[in-house]
Amino acid sequence: MITPLTDRDTLDQEGLERVVERMINGGVSGIFALGTTGEAPSLSYRLRREVIKQTCRIANGRVPVLVGITDTSLVESAKLAQDVVDYGAAAVVTSAPFYFPAGQPELKEYLEQLIPELPLPLVLYNMPALTKVVFQKEVISWALDQERIVGLKDSSGDLTYFKRMLAMAEAHRPDWSLMVGPEEILGEVVLMGGHGGVNGGAILHPCLYVDLYHAAKAKDLDEVRRLSNKVLALSGDLYSVGQHGSAIIKGIKCALSTLGVCDDFMAAPFHRFHSNERAMIAEILDKHGITS
Amino acid sequence: MITPLTDRDTLDQEGLERVVERMINGGVSGIFALGTTGEAPSLSYRLRREVIKQTCRIANGRVPVLVGITDTSLVESAKLAQDVVDYGAAAVVTSAPFYFPAGQPELKEYLEQLIPELPLPLVLYNMPALTKVVFQKEVISWALDQERIVGLKDSSGDLTYFKRMLAMAEAHRPDWSLMVGPEEILGEVVLMGGHGGVNGGAILHPCLYVDLYHAAKAKDLDEVRRLSNKVLALSGDLYSVGQHGSAIIKGIKCALSTLGVCDDFMAAPFHRFHSNERAMIAEILDKHGITS
Amino acid sequence: MITPLTDRDTLDQEGLERVVERMINGGVSGIFALGTTGEAPSLSYRLRREVIKQTCRIANGRVPVLVGITDTSLVESAKLAQDVVDYGAAAVVTSAPFYFPAGQPELKEYLEQLIPELPLPLVLYNMPALTKVVFQKEVISWALDQERIVGLKDSSGDLTYFKRMLAMAEAHRPDWSLMVGPEEILGEVVLMGGHGGVNGGAILHPCLYVDLYHAAKAKDLDEVRRLSNKVLALSGDLYSVGQHGSAIIKGIKCALSTLGVCDDFMAAPFHRFHSNERAMIAEILDKHGITS
Amino acid sequence: MITPLTDRDTLDQEGLERVVERMINGGVSGIFALGTTGEAPSLSYRLRREVIKQTCRIANGRVPVLVGITDTSLVESAKLAQDVVDYGAAAVVTSAPFYFPAGQPELKEYLEQLIPELPLPLVLYNMPALTKVVFQKEVISWALDQERIVGLKDSSGDLTYFKRMLAMAEAHRPDWSLMVGPEEILGEVVLMGGHGGVNGGAILHPCLYVDLYHAAKAKDLDEVRRLSNKVLALSGDLYSVGQHGSAIIKGIKCALSTLGVCDDFMAAPFHRFHSNERAMIAEILDKHGITS
Repeated sequence: MITPLTDRDTLDQEGLERVVERMINGGVSGIFALGTTGEAPSLSYRLRREVIKQTCRIANGRVPVLVGITDTSLVESAKLAQDVVDYGAAAVVTSAPFYFPAGQPELKEYLEQLIPELPLPLVLYNMPALTKVVFQKEVISWALDQERIVGLKDSSGDLTYFKRMLAMAEAHRPDWSLMVGPEEILGEVVLMGGHGGVNGGAILHPCLYVDLYHAAKAKDLDEVRRLSNKVLALSGDLYSVGQHGSAIIKGIKCALSTLGVCDDFMAAPFHRFHSNERAMIAEILDKHGITS
Repeated sequence: MITPLTDRDTLDQEGLERVVERMINGGVSGIFALGTTGEAPSLSYRLRREVIKQTCRIANGRVPVLVGITDTSLVESAKLAQDVVDYGAAAVVTSAPFYFPAGQPELKEYLEQLIPELPLPLVLYNMPALTKVVFQKEVISWALDQERIVGLKDSSGDLTYFKRMLAMAEAHRPDWSLMVGPEEILGEVVLMGGHGGVNGGAILHPCLYVDLYHAAKAKDLDEVRRLSNKVLALSGDLYSVGQHGSAIIKGIKCALSTLGVCDDFMAAPFHRFHSNERAMIAEILDKHGITS
Repeated sequence: MITPLTDRDTLDQEGLERVVERMINGGVSGIFALGTTGEAPSLSYRLRREVIKQTCRIANGRVPVLVGITDTSLVESAKLAQDVVDYGAAAVVTSAPFYFPAGQPELKEYLEQLIPELPLPLVLYNMPALTKVVFQKEVISWALDQERIVGLKDSSGDLTYFKRMLAMAEAHRPDWSLMVGPEEILGEVVLMGGHGGVNGGAILHPCLYVDLYHAAKAKDLDEVRRLSNKVLALSGDLYSVGQHGSAIIKGIKCALSTLGVCDDFMAAPFHRFHSNERAMIAEILDKHGITS
Repeated sequence: MITPLTDRDTLDQEGLERVVERMINGGVSGIFALGTTGEAPSLSYRLRREVIKQTCRIANGRVPVLVGITDTSLVESAKLAQDVVDYGAAAVVTSAPFYFPAGQPELKEYLEQLIPELPLPLVLYNMPALTKVVFQKEVISWALDQERIVGLKDSSGDLTYFKRMLAMAEAHRPDWSLMVGPEEILGEVVLMGGHGGVNGGAILHPCLYVDLYHAAKAKDLDEVRRLSNKVLALSGDLYSVGQHGSAIIKGIKCALSTLGVCDDFMAAPFHRFHSNERAMIAEILDKHGITS
């Protein structure tokens, strides 16, 4: 989920309300707040807590809320986790600490220290493009023995990696959830036994992603190809308006703003699209038939 | 400066006292707290404030204290800056926000938004290996027009970059300070007109680095070569005991601990050296004649 | 196809005979000689010509032989292509020139200059890990208008990239072939409309890969999952005996040597496995039931 | 040295004559033909031999000619070396093979196999940006024991690396030559005991680089700073006209063409500058007072 903002430290509360309702009405199975698309690392700690509190309040148990606690400081990560349990979150999610790149043994020890501090189950979040660190086989192998770790979100885009981790989990922890970040390969991942996606596009247009998920669960291959091509076309258009790494988040926020769902303010170091880019986003929405 | 710790959220106060005295007695011109070597991103915000408070108290105006406020959240960065002015810091230091890699125009806007929030002058900190972002010519060119920005610390290890930035600063802002991170090239940098170094080894053995600085200022080339080779030999030994990116910080902390200066506890995701590595560090200190 | 060698500039002719027969008997649809797995850039030009000549002679029209002409010199690349037509090759394959990384406009011009020199159709080969260059959308879009370019082999491992290129080709050039390098995602690629794989493991154990291909063509999802998991397990074992980038080629050559198919000599800068690694490979073959 | 061309496989003989005379008259101590700036990997083998033959003929013993034999194929590398001895080359130069990235033990073995094939002394060429491989300490340490290896050219731009290798060579092989690629740090390198530079700008304007070298040898620090700043300003202008990795070679060739020295044809995948870029180069030459 994106984090709707009205300025650098103010939540767009009504926008958040509409975003959460949009996703739940669209049929999502859960909400992941304060991930990369949620600009979590760019938000103050106070604001992060508010996002969680409000998201849980709005979701109100209709779907589980997973909360990103990724941080460079284990102490801050643990504090955040301890607070969110009161708000009603279902689980916490962490990537590797992302300033100092940990070696794999260091990454394992980091998790070993973090887990006893967590009042909620933990989902790992593999995001090497931004954290510089992969959760490699040896760490995942260890994690599969930790009762408190219950799944993995993989945003590497490397399907071979995903499949290797899935095979390990299927053998040792059938209760684990393995979810994929890049929406363009959601269909394949679910066809191969993966458990779902945590996809940015599903904030804007949840039913498309939900339908794709169900088609893949039902092994309806023709429908998977049809819907997967729609996802591919949408993401190809929507995420190529901007340059730099921020194009995905800006594209989604701008599209939601164009539809009147929420403000498109971006936390630093990013800034919202200008009017010519807004016009392009409006055209893209029109082309893909996303009118509300 | 390293941050001496006794556990993950507790400052080793007596250790800090000895470290600061060691550096000031060794002749350093200033102290940079909460940089990379200070493990700043791994510390809780509370602890970061304590480090600054205590460091300023101990330094007590004998040398200026520069304080790292690098963060992924502009709001947290600004808050930290606003607090440290009360403690007596002389300037704040920031690298690029390091989760989302900002494009250069975004980086400029980030600084534009940050500067009005800062009660102290700002030094930029180029650290691309960890932040994924370089302060490129266009941003530095803009920064040279900002009165509140007063210098650049460059830890890229790219001397050509350093010299280009120095030439620009000499032409437009002779009051800027350009300092180099990697101690192995401190001599060359000062010979070419650079203003000094912010070097990890100077925490352990300040007089060597201070002497090298003065030799270079005095254009005593033979002495520069002699001392620079000593630095090279020391850093080559000390920083290659460990693996992974943490070898430098671990080497310095372990050496200080071996000398009885402070605890060598490391904040997650790192951990202190084991006994065999400690033995190697002890030998290295002995070999280089660092006995106290 | 690997290139069986008896020393640095001598083809293992009998080995080559057995390798080609093995693949054809295993049901492959074609042979790609002088690719990455064929160690082409490590071979002398004389030897490359011999490999092509002998491979075409042995294949004898039973399956088409595609020939890698990737080079850093357009002149050498064109010369090689002109020779191989006489031997009976069906098409040539080129990646980007790989010493100087070309910008996309430069890459397009490179192909523009190369095509008129080629007496055979051209397949593009996307291999960014080794060439430092991706065939991006703009170049592929141009390539789809070139009659002489007939397909793309993608070894990036990025399924989203593959799907984007496939969607472009389906819209403009239904005659193009899009083939995938990493065998671990062969099943998914064919399920989504891709045309096949150029997979190292198919040299060792062709029937497994051929069966997977046919299962995917037949949309037999359960069989795809079953066989894809076998591929994943085999590649996970076989390619992790060695370190460095050479582990895949060494693994395949050593396995073939263990089975008595051909010599496992490797061209510099690589060298064959030692006896302990050979023993591990033998165990892996045994575990996966590859006995001949 | 650049390689003047009139088309993709034709040497600009008169241009080559003028380039070699220009460099020798400018006072260079030697000529390095078929390096990166010489576009060696882009040239046919026939043309590479012609370049060497003609360069040695023109130089006629006035300065030693070093010849790049870098290749992905050890066999071709050795063949080239065996031919060039007849033309009168003084030494051969090789980087790591650059398609497959060799591990360090593999790199050592590669050199071990190459050396007995070489009729001339060998200089190593560290060029990780293009070869993906660094000659690390362990390989250099071994190389210092090989009588046939006589030096190292380092184009990494990493002065700390250069100084470490220099310190090792000074201790074990005082006859080794250590030369630096990036001209912007030539002065510092020579001040610290390095033996010289192999700098692209010295093809265009040799006396500036020769003067800088001599100033550094004479320990005339003020003159080093003055000339080093001139080099920095020239390279900053000249190499930033183009984009992509080709900007340096294009800038030098275009400048030489503008001065009437030689053709500016570039081997694929590069192409010469267009007229607007030519105009910028002409202005830069004018600004820096390079009129002939």
